[in-house]
Amino acid sequence: MISSKKALGLLFDRPKEPIFKEKGDEGVIFEVPKSFVAERFNDVAFEVQNRFGDNTSPRVSVAQGGRMPNYDQFTKGLDRDAPFSLWVPRHSKIAGKLVELFMSQRSVDDLLSVAAYLRDRINPQLFNYALSVATLHRKDTKGIDIPTFVETFPDKFMDPRVIQQAREDATIVPQGSRRPIVIPTDYTASNLDPEHRLWYFREDVGINLHHWHWHLVYPFDGQRELVDKDRRGEIFYYMHQQVMARYNAERLSNNMAAVDRWTDFRGPIREGYFPKLDTLVANRSWPARPDGTTPSSLVRNADDLRLDIGELERARDRLLQAVNNGFANTSRNQRVPLDEVNGINILGNMVESSILSPNREFYGNLHNSMHNVVAYAHDPDHRHLENFGVIGDSTTAMRDPFFYRVHATIDDLFQAHKTRLTPYTAQQLTFPGITITGFQAQQTQGRANVLNTFWQQSDINMSRGLDFVPRGDVFARFTHLQHVPFTMTISVTNNSNAMRQGMVRIFMAPRNGFNGRPMAFNEQRLMMMETDKFIAQLRPGQNTINRRSTESAVTIPYEQTFRNLDINRPAVGSQREAEYNICGCGWPNHMLIPKGLPNGMLFDLFVMISNYEEDQVNQDLVGQCTDAAPYCGIRDRQYPDRKAMGYPFDRVARSGVNNLNNFLTPNMGTREISIVFNNRVTQRT
Amino acid sequence: MISSKKALGLLFDRPKEPIFKEKGDEGVIFEVPKSFVAERFNDVAFEVQNRFGDNTSPRVSVAQGGRMPNYDQFTKGLDRDAPFSLWVPRHSKIAGKLVELFMSQRSVDDLLSVAAYLRDRINPQLFNYALSVATLHRKDTKGIDIPTFVETFPDKFMDPRVIQQAREDATIVPQGSRRPIVIPTDYTASNLDPEHRLWYFREDVGINLHHWHWHLVYPFDGQRELVDKDRRGEIFYYMHQQVMARYNAERLSNNMAAVDRWTDFRGPIREGYFPKLDTLVANRSWPARPDGTTPSSLVRNADDLRLDIGELERARDRLLQAVNNGFANTSRNQRVPLDEVNGINILGNMVESSILSPNREFYGNLHNSMHNVVAYAHDPDHRHLENFGVIGDSTTAMRDPFFYRVHATIDDLFQAHKTRLTPYTAQQLTFPGITITGFQAQQTQGRANVLNTFWQQSDINMSRGLDFVPRGDVFARFTHLQHVPFTMTISVTNNSNAMRQGMVRIFMAPRNGFNGRPMAFNEQRLMMMETDKFIAQLRPGQNTINRRSTESAVTIPYEQTFRNLDINRPAVGSQREAEYNICGCGWPNHMLIPKGLPNGMLFDLFVMISNYEEDQVNQDLVGQCTDAAPYCGIRDRQYPDRKAMGYPFDRVARSGVNNLNNFLTPNMGTREISIVFNNRVTQRT
Repeated sequence: MISSKKALGLLFDRPKEPIFKEKGDEGVIFEVPKSFVAERFNDVAFEVQNRFGDNTSPRVSVAQGGRMPNYDQFTKGLDRDAPFSLWVPRHSKIAGKLVELFMSQRSVDDLLSVAAYLRDRINPQLFNYALSVATLHRKDTKGIDIPTFVETFPDKFMDPRVIQQAREDATIVPQGSRRPIVIPTDYTASNLDPEHRLWYFREDVGINLHHWHWHLVYPFDGQRELVDKDRRGEIFYYMHQQVMARYNAERLSNNMAAVDRWTDFRGPIREGYFPKLDTLVANRSWPARPDGTTPSSLVRNADDLRLDIGELERARDRLLQAVNNGFANTSRNQRVPLDEVNGINILGNMVESSILSPNREFYGNLHNSMHNVVAYAHDPDHRHLENFGVIGDSTTAMRDPFFYRVHATIDDLFQAHKTRLTPYTAQQLTFPGITITGFQAQQTQGRANVLNTFWQQSDINMSRGLDFVPRGDVFARFTHLQHVPFTMTISVTNNSNAMRQGMVRIFMAPRNGFNGRPMAFNEQRLMMMETDKFIAQLRPGQNTINRRSTESAVTIPYEQTFRNLDINRPAVGSQREAEYNICGCGWPNHMLIPKGLPNGMLFDLFVMISNYEEDQVNQDLVGQCTDAAPYCGIRDRQYPDRKAMGYPFDRVARSGVNNLNNFLTPNMGTREISIVFNNRVTQRT
Repeated sequence: MISSKKALGLLFDRPKEPIFKEKGDEGVIFEVPKSFVAERFNDVAFEVQNRFGDNTSPRVSVAQGGRMPNYDQFTKGLDRDAPFSLWVPRHSKIAGKLVELFMSQRSVDDLLSVAAYLRDRINPQLFNYALSVATLHRKDTKGIDIPTFVETFPDKFMDPRVIQQAREDATIVPQGSRRPIVIPTDYTASNLDPEHRLWYFREDVGINLHHWHWHLVYPFDGQRELVDKDRRGEIFYYMHQQVMARYNAERLSNNMAAVDRWTDFRGPIREGYFPKLDTLVANRSWPARPDGTTPSSLVRNADDLRLDIGELERARDRLLQAVNNGFANTSRNQRVPLDEVNGINILGNMVESSILSPNREFYGNLHNSMHNVVAYAHDPDHRHLENFGVIGDSTTAMRDPFFYRVHATIDDLFQAHKTRLTPYTAQQLTFPGITITGFQAQQTQGRANVLNTFWQQSDINMSRGLDFVPRGDVFARFTHLQHVPFTMTISVTNNSNAMRQGMVRIFMAPRNGFNGRPMAFNEQRLMMMETDKFIAQLRPGQNTINRRSTESAVTIPYEQTFRNLDINRPAVGSQREAEYNICGCGWPNHMLIPKGLPNGMLFDLFVMISNYEEDQVNQDLVGQCTDAAPYCGIRDRQYPDRKAMGYPFDRVARSGVNNLNNFLTPNMGTREISIVFNNRVTQRT
């Protein structure tokens, strides 16, 4: 007999195989009441159940806790074989209810019971989403194995040819002889498509996993206690702003122009995208969008979606009006100031929008609606019975070049607000007594301040996602950007006579803008990528801080992004184990720095040490997973930095500051580094 | 040991499973030389081979005949996992060479050897095509089991959800408990798409099989002896003309306007189509075409396709010029008259075009190019690495509403020629001494001259097409139009004093045109659907001819369209068995008559008896499969009717004839019938 907690984790395994088929590598047999077997298996379940497992198979007995829910009622409008997206209003409502049901179960046993009952009856992706959110947020489900999404739904991340090849290998090739199946690097487009140069960013498995995970942690709808997290509106702004900064740096690394905002909601969309992905749950491929598709108003009753292009225009204009006014209006016509402290957070909730928006009816639903209008541009009135394109699902949206045009527009709104704020004064920025005297970035080998990038191939085990094929490991090998690890060494003088705690903030941005010339501060600040943030103890006198790139606070290591549940697991019962799952949110470390150029590309590396006493949030972080907090926050805790996210680059420059050098106060430093791209492929060892 | 002939048929089984995996329901093991195992299985073949079969498995030993071909060389440009189409010039060249290779083998053993060697190395659909053509045309391969295409490539005919469900059932559900999987009737579009009303015609499995089979019998390129069949240009015209007549009758049955010709090759294509089909070989879905996609010139080097829109315009204009001139010019500037006897045949070869065209360079490649321009409209320069849409492959082309707009334009060219010909005189049309005194169409029950249509569900066994899943029958159940069988009874007086042989020609056309009014002859003649043609012996005096609708010469019965190789087989060694395969070409009998309307739709039923002595072609047809000859011809024989195809409706009316009644000579008759559509679904019993 295995524990209910472990069994709960196994419910994620092979989402389309029925409950009575053995689960996991050990072939666990679920003994469930007859009534748990989905109707379509009634004829065969008994006969079939006896075919699987034997006396030595581990078992779990699932009892019927209470009355089972009337799933039909509340999942109406989302078929089992339909694609699921939180951005479809109907799906979002259903997901909210299901999360609530899972959250309300009194014990892990009850949760296991109701989840096992529902598993084969409802949409597998809805099931995965709701059970993931519930296990992330319940107190009693910490440490449950949630396999990473790419393992259970590999179809959302890779060429279906790889999955088919995996099926064939699992059938034909004995386990010892199987070789990893290589996901081709150029399968979605050719170089004739200028946007294709960024395939390695848009189609990176780690980046897409990060985005999926982020939206798992920050639902915008549903129970208020799950939505109302500390500064969730601000983190929506900041995480996406950073994505844009990073994407634009990649564009510079590929001699491309900056992302063009989406301003004409009625004209044709220049950038086509053919994702070449299947959705195994739906047995449909993801719809493509040919170049020049013109979006239209949506009338899709099946998705509860009626949306005029005019609504996008109105939402944008009203949000901008609120920004320009410096306040939003509630539905009762009360003013909510968009001030320095809370403005960006409120605005983030208004733009996305989440249920925390002060007036969702008036300010609309700009972010989700933009995604939806583009996602359905190929079939706006559902006449062709087509589903949303990849931009309509957080798991796949970042693959589409148009995602970045949407978010350029959204970021523009946020920046309109930020531009209104009083610039930080030199005094505000200074940390009295603390002076940075020098710093450098250094790889183990090579010249200081020269960083190298290259291609790397890594493997993902697909076995948990291959429904209805024999068990056993089958690996997909994907190619991603990687960089040589480096160490930052920072020299700091503490002229006070006491120990000081400093918050070290590290950013980098391209030196030259899209016109090839050095950027002014107000241009460059928008391209500043946060690469690390940490606390340093500063003794009086000289200090040397060493910090490895692998320790970066914004990223999570490869093993955490693609966590294989069977290896690299934290020790059972450890604090770290308890937090294992939420740690899946985080920018992948292999994408910490941009690609650069073969002959080197200049970046300004920036370090600032602020006074931790002013930044500190008093809270207990023992045992919390604080990885990747700058983009992801910390579970059940406040954002661990009282400064505005993106500080000190979140506001325009004070008077007299034209460029980064002018901006510096003694507790800051900047230096030129070069990122050299090496066009070679290595294997992860 | 099984015979080489039987083994050859088994090579069609489960196209992606390697040669060393057991084949067919009996699990036949192919013992092949080590060198036959494709490179990618080298590591595992030995180990794997021993896993399949046991001592009781039937076996076939395949020896290495001669030197194996350098497949790499001649299949270059067509990857194993690429979709294949004869309309892609590069594919067509490769297919031609492979057919030639198969045709040139000196014995069935040699053919088996080279086919078994190539099977796992080349594109599975290319393999299927070339081996099908070769076994159809070789003298020594008559009677070989070629499974019907829908069995081996079910993905080209049905919703991938059905195939996925079949995979699941084959894995989970014991064979006795499996239920047929229903192919939904409304999965490609909704009623919001006006074209969707014709799903049952465009997506009919039998119609698409017919079209695939027709193009198998009539290649347009390759060895001259395979292409140069009797009147192949004319039958290209006629078969497609009849499709148009039938399609327009269905449009009238659905209160739709006539098919609109495609005249502006540069404007947007109104009709979108989302096929919702996968191609299992390529692991790609078939690309969709959203409404309003604008076609562009093609620059697709990978497909050997550079094609300006201007070429379509030039080809159309030059063809029309040839028609208007009454002659074509050869490349040496010699005139080839487009006369009454050969004109339509030459023009057919020019339009398609086949290698028989008198000047392919000058008159271009109108038909294939039209298909290609539309098939690639979503990715004309291959930047998105997309393949052709369904209209680019003869197996799937008829699903696309735009197929009919292409062929309306093509038929227009043919009719421009036909319109120039001298109308048949009453004397030419008369059969002296023969008078039709009456006729009727009668179902077993019900009123005379009222025919009933309804929906029927039939099953197809998919087991041969389900690669890499356990064996055993899995049925897909599809819904198609059907009609109650009826008998034609024709009363004929023979006033001569001798026996006469008559060619009975039966047509029908809607009474009223698209404006709701009775059609003039020259409008109605284009909508005349041939429903039967047969020889009748006419004794002096009164004769009564009875002919059942199931005997129709233009159609083949259900069992022949979907021939299950294991049941309904002709007796071994019989003549009929020898011709079993070519008999797959033919309009499906279930689509013999149009759908009609719930309250009845008026049609003019037309019967003509011409003098068989004038129509007769002297040739030995003993043992030949003459089924469906009007649309498909007869293998290795002349077209069995000396009259122009479509006679007597292939020319405009003689002076003074305004409507069908005026047109009649005594050996003809016409009467009003009604087709009543009953919106009920029955099961084939």
